[in-house]
Formats: sequence, structure tokens, C-alpha cells
Amino acid sequence: LRPEVGAIREVVVARLPLYIRVLSRLEGEKEIVSSQELGYRLQLSAAQIRKDLSLFGKFGKQGRGYDVSGLLGALRRIMGLDREWAMVLVGVGRLGRAVLDYGRFTRAGFRIVAAFDIDQALVGKRIGGVLIQDVTELGDTVHSKGVRIGIVSAPASQAQGVVDSMVGVGIKAILNYAPVAARVPPGVRLRDIDPVMAAQSITFYLREESPLEELMP
Amino acid sequence: LRPEVGAIREVVVARLPLYIRVLSRLEGEKEIVSSQELGYRLQLSAAQIRKDLSLFGKFGKQGRGYDVSGLLGALRRIMGLDREWAMVLVGVGRLGRAVLDYGRFTRAGFRIVAAFDIDQALVGKRIGGVLIQDVTELGDTVHSKGVRIGIVSAPASQAQGVVDSMVGVGIKAILNYAPVAARVPPGVRLRDIDPVMAAQSITFYLREESPLEELMP
Repeated sequence: LRPEVGAIREVVVARLPLYIRVLSRLEGEKEIVSSQELGYRLQLSAAQIRKDLSLFGKFGKQGRGYDVSGLLGALRRIMGLDREWAMVLVGVGRLGRAVLDYGRFTRAGFRIVAAFDIDQALVGKRIGGVLIQDVTELGDTVHSKGVRIGIVSAPASQAQGVVDSMVGVGIKAILNYAPVAARVPPGVRLRDIDPVMAAQSITFYLREESPLEELMP
Repeated sequence: LRPEVGAIREVVVARLPLYIRVLSRLEGEKEIVSSQELGYRLQLSAAQIRKDLSLFGKFGKQGRGYDVSGLLGALRRIMGLDREWAMVLVGVGRLGRAVLDYGRFTRAGFRIVAAFDIDQALVGKRIGGVLIQDVTELGDTVHSKGVRIGIVSAPASQAQGVVDSMVGVGIKAILNYAPVAARVPPGVRLRDIDPVMAAQSITFYLREESPLEELMP
């Protein structure tokens, strides 16, 4: 019996890209990798590695370890990373321009095919090779290019409206750079990209000068 | 009996910034918030909200909900966010410059006090008001300014070396923008900031055309 997609916890799916990253680096170095070494590189226990991977298939042989290329290829197919994905971006302010200039999406197989803004001074220009269109053209472009992933780089005050527009035209996965907790309906996935939240989650471990007990109400 | 800091699961700590974000928005709107409404805004069950918060103290009253300002203030203190944090950045290439120009760290109380590079053409210049120093001065600056948080924006090939240098001079928390799974010793915390990994974790849900079972080995 195999688990259904919906039954696999999102937190496990969210760390699969780290497996991809680690296995990609290992691919040039060795053919077989143990759960212990994967655990060391991923900062998880070997038992957790075996448990994670068992959700996605029968990988590896008892006492022998995992075939690096085989595991990497299977995980890439399972994650949908064996193809290119088209994305649209809405919000071509300072942040949106930085995202358009950022080369790593393209190298990883994620191509921004169109960008949108309400500012008519930007419409018709190109940034990072991408044409900026009026936001009213979002639906037509998404449909004609078969796009299913959207990047929200609009200001905070407009972000939920942009998310709603994307959902309305059939976008199913959203990367949100705006500093808001945007809401999406069931069936649409959203990931927040927020370096400040990463910073805020790390200071918890730095305030050892004030014991937690003293701060608790 | 209250849990020790080390016993609180990192995944719970990692989502506390989302509580902070949601409560900050609620603060101007209302005085009391229910676990149901917090759950709706955080996309967690009300039971999960109560469980999360119970780890950090006795918040809220049965049947009455949580005091928004009180909960926000307590969580900010518990997270160490009731003060300013100094950070150093190493690697002033294209990515590092974008980070130095990014205004949100400062607005959230995280101030980059110094930046470092090996490129002598950059040393002595200022970007976003921050002086770029030779990387050999990292230890002196970290000690004299009491810095405990480092940002790694060096190229992938140099990132582990930069992490090791930071750890060597006493940095205890690292935000890693480089596309590598860097290793840190026990007692040092590391967070990867990688929009590509967010994109890679979302395509799993988009490939419904190929049932998971067919892809599994």
C-alpha cells in the first residue's frame, strides 16, 4: 500500500528540495550513499531519512545504501522537476525587478514568461528579458501560455488582491514575496519567501541571557 | 512544568514569526482574537494554535480568546524580538548587494552593521550605508560590535568556508543565501534562504497528470 499525495505531510514535501540539492552535489562524487551520510548532510537522523524516502517508494537496499543517480532521478520525477515550469510575476517594483534579475530560477528550470504591473510607465518595457504587460492581460497570458505558477511581488497592501486575481485566472501555486499572510482557497498552494521571517525564527535561540521561564506569562 | 528551550521543536519556533506577523496586523483591528480566527489566518487548526501557544506560556482564557497586544508583546519577548540585532554580511557580489539594499531587515530590527569581501576593489566602499571591509577584519568587527548573526551571500564554492569563518569568530546564527547545504556545529543555528527551494517544493502538487504510484520505484 502506498500513501496518497494528500496524505504526505507538507513538511516532508517541503524538505525534498534539500534532498535534491544534496544528491545533485553527491552525483559527481560517488555512486552509492548511505542513510547515515544523507542524514549528516541534511542534518536529519538516518532513521528519519529512511522514513522520509519510504513515503515515496522503495529506494535503496538493506545494508547497501541508495544509488545516488537513481534516487535523484526518481525524486526529480516525483517532485515534477524533470520538466520546465513557466511562471508569471505580478508587481514590478524594486523587489519584482530583483526577482526578474535573479538568475537562479531559470537555471533551476523555472522560467518567468511574463511580468505584470498597473504602472503604465513600466508596461511595454523589458527587464531581464521579460516583457512587462498591463495587469489586465494576466488571464489571457496565463491561459495562452499554460502557466500554473505565480510570483507575487506587489506591495503588501495589494498582495491579497493580486493573489485573488491569480487564483481567479487558474494559477495553482503561488510564491509570495509580499510581507503579508495571504489567503488561498483549497487546491491552491502558497509559499512565503521572507528572509525577515528566517531571521526572526533564529533569534529565539540567541536570548539565553533571559531564561524562557521568566518571559512566560 | 514548562518545557526547556531545547525541547521545543524547531518547526514550531520557525512558525512563530507568522504568529507575530498576523498579530501585528490584528493589533489595529481588535483587542481579542479567538484560536479559530488565528487558525484561519495561519492556516492551522484551532487545536494546533492552542497547542503551539501552550508551549510558551499560559495565554488566553477559556471561551474568551487571546488578548492581541498582550500575546504579541509576550511572543516578541520570547522570540528575542523586543530589541535590535546587529548582523554582518560576507560576500558583496550581486546577491550581497541586493541584500544590503533590501530595506526590510532594518525595519524589522535587524541591522547589517558591516559587510565583508575579499575583492579589494570593493573594500572601503559603502552600499546601502554599510562600509565594506576586508574579510580578514571579520573577527575584530564581530567582537567589537558584539555581533551574533551572520548573513552568507558568498558564491556557492566559498560558502562553507565563510560559514566556518563565522563560526570561528563566535557567530551563533547564520542566514545562508548561498545555494549549498552548509554545515554548522551544535550550538550554531542556520537558516537557508532559497526561493528556488520554495518553488521546487510546490511543483509536487502540480503534477496530477502523473499519479504518484506510477513514478514510484
